[in-house]
Amino acid sequence: MIVVLKPNVAAEKQERLIDWLKSLSLNVNVSQGEFQTVLGLVGDTSTVDTSLLESLEIVDTVKRVTDPFKRANRKFHPEDTVIDVNGVKIGGGNFCIMAGPCSVEYEEQIIGIAKAVKASGAQILRGGAFKPRTSPYDFQGLKKEGLRLLSLAKKETGLPIISEVMNITDLPLFDDVDILQVGARNTQNFDLLKELGKVGKPILLKRGIAGTLKELLMSAEYIMSSGNEKVILCERGIRTYSDYMRNTLDLAAVPMLHELSHLPVIVDPSHATGIARMVTPMALAGTACGADGLEVEVHHDPEHALSDGAQSLRPKDFDTLVRKVTAIRNAIV
Amino acid sequence: MIVVLKPNVAAEKQERLIDWLKSLSLNVNVSQGEFQTVLGLVGDTSTVDTSLLESLEIVDTVKRVTDPFKRANRKFHPEDTVIDVNGVKIGGGNFCIMAGPCSVEYEEQIIGIAKAVKASGAQILRGGAFKPRTSPYDFQGLKKEGLRLLSLAKKETGLPIISEVMNITDLPLFDDVDILQVGARNTQNFDLLKELGKVGKPILLKRGIAGTLKELLMSAEYIMSSGNEKVILCERGIRTYSDYMRNTLDLAAVPMLHELSHLPVIVDPSHATGIARMVTPMALAGTACGADGLEVEVHHDPEHALSDGAQSLRPKDFDTLVRKVTAIRNAIV
Amino acid sequence: MIVVLKPNVAAEKQERLIDWLKSLSLNVNVSQGEFQTVLGLVGDTSTVDTSLLESLEIVDTVKRVTDPFKRANRKFHPEDTVIDVNGVKIGGGNFCIMAGPCSVEYEEQIIGIAKAVKASGAQILRGGAFKPRTSPYDFQGLKKEGLRLLSLAKKETGLPIISEVMNITDLPLFDDVDILQVGARNTQNFDLLKELGKVGKPILLKRGIAGTLKELLMSAEYIMSSGNEKVILCERGIRTYSDYMRNTLDLAAVPMLHELSHLPVIVDPSHATGIARMVTPMALAGTACGADGLEVEVHHDPEHALSDGAQSLRPKDFDTLVRKVTAIRNAIV
Amino acid sequence: MIVVLKPNVAAEKQERLIDWLKSLSLNVNVSQGEFQTVLGLVGDTSTVDTSLLESLEIVDTVKRVTDPFKRANRKFHPEDTVIDVNGVKIGGGNFCIMAGPCSVEYEEQIIGIAKAVKASGAQILRGGAFKPRTSPYDFQGLKKEGLRLLSLAKKETGLPIISEVMNITDLPLFDDVDILQVGARNTQNFDLLKELGKVGKPILLKRGIAGTLKELLMSAEYIMSSGNEKVILCERGIRTYSDYMRNTLDLAAVPMLHELSHLPVIVDPSHATGIARMVTPMALAGTACGADGLEVEVHHDPEHALSDGAQSLRPKDFDTLVRKVTAIRNAIV
Repeated sequence: MIVVLKPNVAAEKQERLIDWLKSLSLNVNVSQGEFQTVLGLVGDTSTVDTSLLESLEIVDTVKRVTDPFKRANRKFHPEDTVIDVNGVKIGGGNFCIMAGPCSVEYEEQIIGIAKAVKASGAQILRGGAFKPRTSPYDFQGLKKEGLRLLSLAKKETGLPIISEVMNITDLPLFDDVDILQVGARNTQNFDLLKELGKVGKPILLKRGIAGTLKELLMSAEYIMSSGNEKVILCERGIRTYSDYMRNTLDLAAVPMLHELSHLPVIVDPSHATGIARMVTPMALAGTACGADGLEVEVHHDPEHALSDGAQSLRPKDFDTLVRKVTAIRNAIV
Repeated sequence: MIVVLKPNVAAEKQERLIDWLKSLSLNVNVSQGEFQTVLGLVGDTSTVDTSLLESLEIVDTVKRVTDPFKRANRKFHPEDTVIDVNGVKIGGGNFCIMAGPCSVEYEEQIIGIAKAVKASGAQILRGGAFKPRTSPYDFQGLKKEGLRLLSLAKKETGLPIISEVMNITDLPLFDDVDILQVGARNTQNFDLLKELGKVGKPILLKRGIAGTLKELLMSAEYIMSSGNEKVILCERGIRTYSDYMRNTLDLAAVPMLHELSHLPVIVDPSHATGIARMVTPMALAGTACGADGLEVEVHHDPEHALSDGAQSLRPKDFDTLVRKVTAIRNAIV
Repeated sequence: MIVVLKPNVAAEKQERLIDWLKSLSLNVNVSQGEFQTVLGLVGDTSTVDTSLLESLEIVDTVKRVTDPFKRANRKFHPEDTVIDVNGVKIGGGNFCIMAGPCSVEYEEQIIGIAKAVKASGAQILRGGAFKPRTSPYDFQGLKKEGLRLLSLAKKETGLPIISEVMNITDLPLFDDVDILQVGARNTQNFDLLKELGKVGKPILLKRGIAGTLKELLMSAEYIMSSGNEKVILCERGIRTYSDYMRNTLDLAAVPMLHELSHLPVIVDPSHATGIARMVTPMALAGTACGADGLEVEVHHDPEHALSDGAQSLRPKDFDTLVRKVTAIRNAIV
Repeated sequence: MIVVLKPNVAAEKQERLIDWLKSLSLNVNVSQGEFQTVLGLVGDTSTVDTSLLESLEIVDTVKRVTDPFKRANRKFHPEDTVIDVNGVKIGGGNFCIMAGPCSVEYEEQIIGIAKAVKASGAQILRGGAFKPRTSPYDFQGLKKEGLRLLSLAKKETGLPIISEVMNITDLPLFDDVDILQVGARNTQNFDLLKELGKVGKPILLKRGIAGTLKELLMSAEYIMSSGNEKVILCERGIRTYSDYMRNTLDLAAVPMLHELSHLPVIVDPSHATGIARMVTPMALAGTACGADGLEVEVHHDPEHALSDGAQSLRPKDFDTLVRKVTAIRNAIV
């Protein structure tokens, strides 16, 4: 960590600051410039509050040299993490497509869609049982019954399943779920993240509604530092002022997250745009810039879906998507 | 709700859409324009998925006529809500200052600060026991012990207390806390909101990190529709690209929320800027545009505070703030 | 245009509004709902100020049914526009790569880079002579001399050239330039746009620093309504709070602009990220989601470039980019 | 400027970088840390391209120690700048209200409004003659005739006048205008700024649509470094995702700009919100946090205004605003 002092600081004040920093078990390297003095702090700076330092009267600016995430950091783990979900591999050159309805609705629905997406090439079945909805008056998911139906579809098709968990107290219901998903509104629900760190299952962690990449990686760090290294990062669009679409899909996050971290990165083109006819182009773009997989909403009858019908692909359109994605994959590797 | 159809829609498709809308128990008012047909939907449209409607092939645009929040809506409750916290009134012309440290640290700290802010005119004592921190390596609060110390300070000074709750399972520990605070990262933690709807205490609900006003009011609606009408809204700055400060305090939200809702609206100038010397000007601005109160971080020794020291006022600066705020209140009423 | 009135409006006030609207040569279609009255305005609503209407005491909300851009609107021009630049075609299935240095610096530089990018497959040479820089103390371009050198490179290689024009008064210097570029800071410099509408050359119009798609299309409309239909739209990243990169490349804008407009859409992956090693993945992503071309910064010696060296590719990396882009093009068509 | 090198950089590469930096006439101060080496650059770093430095293979991060604006910087000019406009003082404790219609429309309109706002206490008359409109089909201002009418109103009332200039070539028409205004879409029209640096009149410089404070100050620097030190900064709201209002008024910019710069800072509450009934609360808030003045749109008949009627106050509401603003001013000084 680098601390730049203001010009012409009284020697005594400077000494007091250095003593305080040393009391935090840091080595302090003083570099006296022509106009300004620069302190280089060496040691475990992860506990130093940079904004407090910046607020001190004699301090001009403070800069962290090392990113505050460690376990998620590629610097310390140069090899790609590969996550195995009942034989399906994600990351490290393995591309994985997760697909299924936004919400599980009834038995024929989830089994029908599961069979369709499997036939097209999906390797994992998604389906929501607990739904975070902006309005308390909207459909909130089938909950326990939804998870039961999802299990049926897993048994029927052999596809591993992924579903969103919103609450620590619901965790026991997710026994048969293969990947636990953390939604964009819970990316910084730190108590939930800590609890997921004690679970031996892969976690798909979505970027927050307006989350930065650092925040996403720090949230991964919460899970990893609690004991669970199997984290899959997911770009799903961020909030901006852009018109005509729900969110702005930040695809440059894919190569940047790959540079910063060893964790797999997948793209959710459905929530990113909220519009079914934008899903395929964005899935192709995500594939082209190196994503390790996709999570796509598919519904056999979007007009009657209980949630997010507007962004769901029909099975035949999903089939086209998979064919084009495969062509892109072949073109870039 | 208004649904504008695309030009030259086949009569048959139009009929099918109208039938479907009627099947949702809505009355459909058809207005045939020169180029386009407009449907007016009358009835309980709160369950209609507008984005699904918009995605239909024959639909051009959809517009809600009524805001989707009801209990929080001033249209249906023209009178200001006034919330009583052990005799301290918030809303409806009653101005209330909440102050105290970001984190409760030790007995002398919280009692000392409590006495100081009370002497200056604060009516409610704030103090964090459970701290949502971006990094798992940062101080996470004293938890149960922090709440115990806060209770001591309440006994000592008579000030009602407010503290943040992050998790349903922690609720039993908050028995002696007078106002439960929901932080900006939990504004859309819907399970927590529902649970707080069953508690008979006032809830201070912060606007999300990048939350819209509608989202804030819908989150209030979660609490209210679960049975608890005592919600205090709090503007605390939103995420933008603006430089030099942590967040952008959106003060126009104060008069706009007052127009949209009957709930009290307070301003948190500390988290909004993250810089102690910006707290007083922003507190004055918030007061001038009609806020019903302020929540201000105060610490006797910001340089050694365990969290958010950079934005904490010293007691003597808080005293000045209260004096100036009072002058502004007198000037505008 | 749809105007929804507030509930229980006095009949007299409603009549006065309708009379006023009729005085604007509009037909007014009144649809009396159970609770609220809806007015449908038919005629040329492009001159109606929607925000003024919305501010009227008796009006609840106002919604435009038709986008306010006309000449740029695909509704009225379903066929893709194809722009011909000295035999190089852009749009309608024709993919075009423009490449070259951010700034023209000296003769050997621009000619060397021009030959290199041509050899790799670029069809148009870019080079800045007038540079909009945030700081008055930064290099502002070689200006007239830069354009002279660019012309030399054109003569030497046969590549058509594109360069940014910042100012009406500079236009006479651009005689030999084949495409005039409008930068992100000038997207709403309306006087410049009007002047470019009188020029018979293709205009490459960049999206504003924080521009919406509607604003981009309205700026295209300024050029087109002044007489020049040859407009190429360019997505180059928008300003957000995202960390680690300069801008957020909004690639979903590509398919959305194609839906809204018949104009060609290209992607600038260099300014979007500001980081050379992100340029190739973003160029591939842009290609995969259907862009009609790319504009890429290439420099033989980025470390000594006079501007934007950080985001410039070396010629050999550009060569790889073109090869991969071609593979993607082959995969998707 | 501080340059942090990556860990374990080859000595030879480090030497080559240092030599290159020295070739830019900089002194380089090397501080060898335990893990990483830090270079302190001393000298005129304003010409160093930080993003290029950051992109070098051996460089980890780069940080400027000094803000890149100089003439606008309070560090080098601790005293407030006071600008005198025909005897009306702005800045340094002098509060100034500018008011008038968005657009000049006809003689009785501008003279009537001018008399009304003068009677209420406005010291400067605003009125637009050249109007930057998003749509080419919207009213673009009376241009030369508008300036003539504004001059008439000046003669009639004695109020100095302010009007927006969009284009260098129009400058000769502004002879009688006392303050030249640069609108939010032209904040980075650098050629216009340079030209305004040669004019001996005060310039009111609005913050860009999505401008940062640094960009605003760098644009002020363009004017000042071209010879004109009389710059008034204006906060007018920035673009965000916030709903219900046009822009987000960033009032914390007021105290922050006062800290960073010696230039006067005024607030435009009309464009910030776009809604007349939000103008007064925001004017009061801006006053309370220390603005040096206000620019307010006033129209005698907003419903028939040719532009921005939705945000214009009626004269009697403006009168109330001035009274309340005066009360706030008295309360805080």
